Amino acid sequence: MVIVFKPNASKEQIGHVSDYLHAKGFDIHINEGKELTIFGIVGDTKLLTPETFLEMDGVSNAFRVQESYKLCSRTFHPRNTKVRVGDVTIGGSEIAVIAGPCSIENEEMLFHISSGIVKSGANLIRGGAFKPRSSPYAFQGLGEEGLKYLRKIGDRTGRPVVSEVMAISDIPLFEKYVDLIQIGARNMQNFALLKELAHVKKALLLKRGISATIDEWLNSAEYLASKGNQRIILCERGIRTFEQSTRFTLDLSSVPVIKKKSHLPIIVDPSHPMGQRELVIPMARAAVAAGADGIMVEVHNCPEKALSDGPQSLTIKQFSDLMKEIEIIAGAIGKTIAKN
Amino acid sequence: MVIVFKPNASKEQIGHVSDYLHAKGFDIHINEGKELTIFGIVGDTKLLTPETFLEMDGVSNAFRVQESYKLCSRTFHPRNTKVRVGDVTIGGSEIAVIAGPCSIENEEMLFHISSGIVKSGANLIRGGAFKPRSSPYAFQGLGEEGLKYLRKIGDRTGRPVVSEVMAISDIPLFEKYVDLIQIGARNMQNFALLKELAHVKKALLLKRGISATIDEWLNSAEYLASKGNQRIILCERGIRTFEQSTRFTLDLSSVPVIKKKSHLPIIVDPSHPMGQRELVIPMARAAVAAGADGIMVEVHNCPEKALSDGPQSLTIKQFSDLMKEIEIIAGAIGKTIAKN
Amino acid sequence: MVIVFKPNASKEQIGHVSDYLHAKGFDIHINEGKELTIFGIVGDTKLLTPETFLEMDGVSNAFRVQESYKLCSRTFHPRNTKVRVGDVTIGGSEIAVIAGPCSIENEEMLFHISSGIVKSGANLIRGGAFKPRSSPYAFQGLGEEGLKYLRKIGDRTGRPVVSEVMAISDIPLFEKYVDLIQIGARNMQNFALLKELAHVKKALLLKRGISATIDEWLNSAEYLASKGNQRIILCERGIRTFEQSTRFTLDLSSVPVIKKKSHLPIIVDPSHPMGQRELVIPMARAAVAAGADGIMVEVHNCPEKALSDGPQSLTIKQFSDLMKEIEIIAGAIGKTIAKN
Amino acid sequence: MVIVFKPNASKEQIGHVSDYLHAKGFDIHINEGKELTIFGIVGDTKLLTPETFLEMDGVSNAFRVQESYKLCSRTFHPRNTKVRVGDVTIGGSEIAVIAGPCSIENEEMLFHISSGIVKSGANLIRGGAFKPRSSPYAFQGLGEEGLKYLRKIGDRTGRPVVSEVMAISDIPLFEKYVDLIQIGARNMQNFALLKELAHVKKALLLKRGISATIDEWLNSAEYLASKGNQRIILCERGIRTFEQSTRFTLDLSSVPVIKKKSHLPIIVDPSHPMGQRELVIPMARAAVAAGADGIMVEVHNCPEKALSDGPQSLTIKQFSDLMKEIEIIAGAIGKTIAKN
Repeated sequence: MVIVFKPNASKEQIGHVSDYLHAKGFDIHINEGKELTIFGIVGDTKLLTPETFLEMDGVSNAFRVQESYKLCSRTFHPRNTKVRVGDVTIGGSEIAVIAGPCSIENEEMLFHISSGIVKSGANLIRGGAFKPRSSPYAFQGLGEEGLKYLRKIGDRTGRPVVSEVMAISDIPLFEKYVDLIQIGARNMQNFALLKELAHVKKALLLKRGISATIDEWLNSAEYLASKGNQRIILCERGIRTFEQSTRFTLDLSSVPVIKKKSHLPIIVDPSHPMGQRELVIPMARAAVAAGADGIMVEVHNCPEKALSDGPQSLTIKQFSDLMKEIEIIAGAIGKTIAKN
Repeated sequence: MVIVFKPNASKEQIGHVSDYLHAKGFDIHINEGKELTIFGIVGDTKLLTPETFLEMDGVSNAFRVQESYKLCSRTFHPRNTKVRVGDVTIGGSEIAVIAGPCSIENEEMLFHISSGIVKSGANLIRGGAFKPRSSPYAFQGLGEEGLKYLRKIGDRTGRPVVSEVMAISDIPLFEKYVDLIQIGARNMQNFALLKELAHVKKALLLKRGISATIDEWLNSAEYLASKGNQRIILCERGIRTFEQSTRFTLDLSSVPVIKKKSHLPIIVDPSHPMGQRELVIPMARAAVAAGADGIMVEVHNCPEKALSDGPQSLTIKQFSDLMKEIEIIAGAIGKTIAKN
Repeated sequence: MVIVFKPNASKEQIGHVSDYLHAKGFDIHINEGKELTIFGIVGDTKLLTPETFLEMDGVSNAFRVQESYKLCSRTFHPRNTKVRVGDVTIGGSEIAVIAGPCSIENEEMLFHISSGIVKSGANLIRGGAFKPRSSPYAFQGLGEEGLKYLRKIGDRTGRPVVSEVMAISDIPLFEKYVDLIQIGARNMQNFALLKELAHVKKALLLKRGISATIDEWLNSAEYLASKGNQRIILCERGIRTFEQSTRFTLDLSSVPVIKKKSHLPIIVDPSHPMGQRELVIPMARAAVAAGADGIMVEVHNCPEKALSDGPQSLTIKQFSDLMKEIEIIAGAIGKTIAKN
Repeated sequence: MVIVFKPNASKEQIGHVSDYLHAKGFDIHINEGKELTIFGIVGDTKLLTPETFLEMDGVSNAFRVQESYKLCSRTFHPRNTKVRVGDVTIGGSEIAVIAGPCSIENEEMLFHISSGIVKSGANLIRGGAFKPRSSPYAFQGLGEEGLKYLRKIGDRTGRPVVSEVMAISDIPLFEKYVDLIQIGARNMQNFALLKELAHVKKALLLKRGISATIDEWLNSAEYLASKGNQRIILCERGIRTFEQSTRFTLDLSSVPVIKKKSHLPIIVDPSHPMGQRELVIPMARAAVAAGADGIMVEVHNCPEKALSDGPQSLTIKQFSDLMKEIEIIAGAIGKTIAKN
């Protein structure tokens, strides 16, 4: 931690900060210049917060020199992490495509959609069984029954399957049925859930909270990593802004920013933020061009009959066309689409 | 639900929407004008979402006529709800003041602070025992030990006590030790937690999520109310915006907006969003002037030594001065400060 | 400016930054510690931007030690500035109330409204003659005719008058007819306009841009001050956020933040952001409680017939009631309402 | 305009709205159902605003059926508009690349950079001569001298040139020296400037305001189009959000949204929002993949010596590599890079 004093800070003000730090057991590397006095604090500064000092009289600035996360930081782990889920590797030179319906409505639709997308090259199959819904009156998903269908389809197609967990009490079901466990945007800072999932022997897909900064997102990943599970894939899914023509603003710039700050793989979900399928397709392409390690898109055999999020689901034909486009785009930056 | 077609919508487009609705079992009240065709949909439209129709060809607009929440809506419950916690009533003509340290650090500091603020008129005592922290390495609170101290102080001073619950597994502790259970901003859409708390026989303090719209907030309250617990107090605590001179932007306008949309009481926490005590004081006053049913402020006997959020904590003296100011402001709008 | 290097920065990286600075003619105060190397840059650092260094290899942080504005900073001018407009002083212990219609529609309505509000104690009369409208098809105001009516009313009631200027070519009209010239939110960074207004011999009311940070706002004030006009009053009018239940989010916390950073007076306009009169009243009270030097509210004799912004206009009776409330609130913090 | 009443609206409330509309000369198409009463308003509703009705008792919703802009709407003009600047056509199947330095610092650097980028295929050359700067003390550009250099380079390389105008009084200079006149983000709602530029015989590049909604942006384009100049190219350049790891959040989803709502071409500037060159490159690629009609990137021969925005400027070599990548990406969606 570094503390910079105001040009006109008094000796008393500087001494007060010094006393405070010594009382807490920290060493200070003092630099007194003509115009500026600067403290470099030596020791385990994780327990200090810059705000404490910003409030003190005479202090101009106080900040950490290092990120508050370590295991997820590229500084401490320069090489890209690759996460293996079933026979797919996420985070290398291959782009992984996750597709499937928003909600699993019944076995037939899941089978129908899965067959179609696997034929076009989807690498993993997604399907919601427990749905986070703003309103208590909305359809909340099929629960365990949905996960069973998903497992069955996964086994039949040979594709790993992904679904979102919402409650600690449901974790055993996910360990049984699912290959990649999704932590939804609303639970990105549900620390109790993160702590439990850290002990699970499955890969984790951590969505960005709808108003989470990139540093908060990486700190949530650090909760998982520091407590035992480093098989983490990040997923950008849009942030909340003033713009109302899309549900959320897909922040594609998080892809290169994460690549710079962290070694973890990052994929992009363009379906939820865009809300309309004709907008999902260009943003899926853009995600690949921006350097994402994968995309996750919703596909439905009959979007208008979908029980949730129909308008944003691609048709199977649209998905197939998209696959051809992103294959070329991947090639432009030296990547390929993964093959199971 | 109402669906409005574009002026140039074709018969086929309109017929398609009509077929879709009939297939789902809804009756349509059709209004065909010279320029506009409008559908009023009759039946239980809770399973429909406007987005489904917005995506269909020829549709100009689709929207609900009523809010998605009912029990928490003023439309269905015009009179103010009053929530009784211990001997304090929140939501009437009295303003409740909740105060105490951010984190309970030890018994002495809690006792020292509590004595001071009770003397100045605090109605409830707050103190964090389980702390939601962005970083896994930050101080996470004393846990059950903290709740025990809080209970002891509550009994000694005769003031009800408030603390935040973070995990379902901790709910029994809160039932045992705490009078008003706080649901933190990060958990506003932790639906698993909300469903459990709905069955608890304690009053609940539901903080607004850092990027929650007012409607989402009321829908989260509806999760509690619809599943059994209507003793809900809302708490505005700032939203996330681009402005960085404060931690969050305290959205005081949510106070009159909630008063218009809902019958639930609403209080304001100016401490967390403002981050610096000299900014907390004017915003606490402003909250009362805006019509809040109460305020919740952090007070510390020695803010510089606080383990968390020291800079935003008022001193006991500052709290005492604030009480005098808000008493006059309350009087300006026909209210008084509550007395235990 | 201070530059902090990463703990693992190489000699070459540090040397490169050093060479860059020397080539630009700056002296460096170097502090090399065991873990950290820090540069304090001596000289006129206004031409440097922190981003330049943040991009360089090995640099961890770079920041200014002082604000980018000077004349508007409290650091360089600790005492509150008081701006006199007609016989009203804004920025002292008196709260100034500006009121009037959004748009001047005709002479009668302006006269009717002005008589009513002056009777209740309004200190200045506002009225729009040139209206900034998102759509080119919306009512754009009466232009010079409106300003003439405003001047006439000002003379008749003895109250100074306020109106918004939108174009440099209209400045002479404002110099002729108006006492306080308003710079609208959309023009806060219209630097060409600011530079011209800096030479005008009238007090200026500078509204905050809808997504301006507080520092950008003070920098815009610095454009005025540094080029010759220091009679500046700031006006908070809401910022753009995700919340849609109000037009803008009134950021009342800017009041104490501005008081801390600057010596300039600040008033609050609750009418535009709230959009509905029943929400304007509590926020006007809150503005006074937060420490604003004044408020500016829209009043209309017949809000439903208003050509613009009717729903947010108070009736004359509501305005009169509000004046009584804020008089008490002002008293709670040792202030009074100004009397002309 | 459509007005929907609440299910429990009284006859008096409905009658009141009806009287109001009749008094203003509008016809009403009334639809009284069992549960709902709906008004369709016939006539020139441009002078009405939905808010007026939302405020009235008994009203549930009020909204426009058509956009507030016409000439810029795809509804009224289904085919893509192509804007010709020099020998480049923007808005067709070719992608236009605009490149050059942020600020024109002197003739040599402009010549050096221009030669390099033209060799790699840049279609237009950009360069700032009048710079909008938050601080009055920052470098404000070379002014007319810069424009002269730009014209000279344009003539020498045969490439059209682009620069930003800030003041009405400078328009004649731009008419003389520049081929495409840029309206900066801060001036998107400088209506006085828009009205003047509508009469200029040059193509216009309208940047999105930093917190402008897409509808506001199109309304600003409508100011230009409705007053005489329809040669408009839109430019996305990032919006302001809470995320601080980039300067602005580049909202690439505006590309497909604009394509849906409007027939105007849209290009993307990834340089300003990203702020660091390593982040600019992936976002430039993503813009092309998202369907943009062009990109505008900053290039500098020696970014570290740049007087403004050095860190975000690509080197000539990086620009050349980027051109190769976007050529492939353009091909993936059936487009090519323009050739002069």
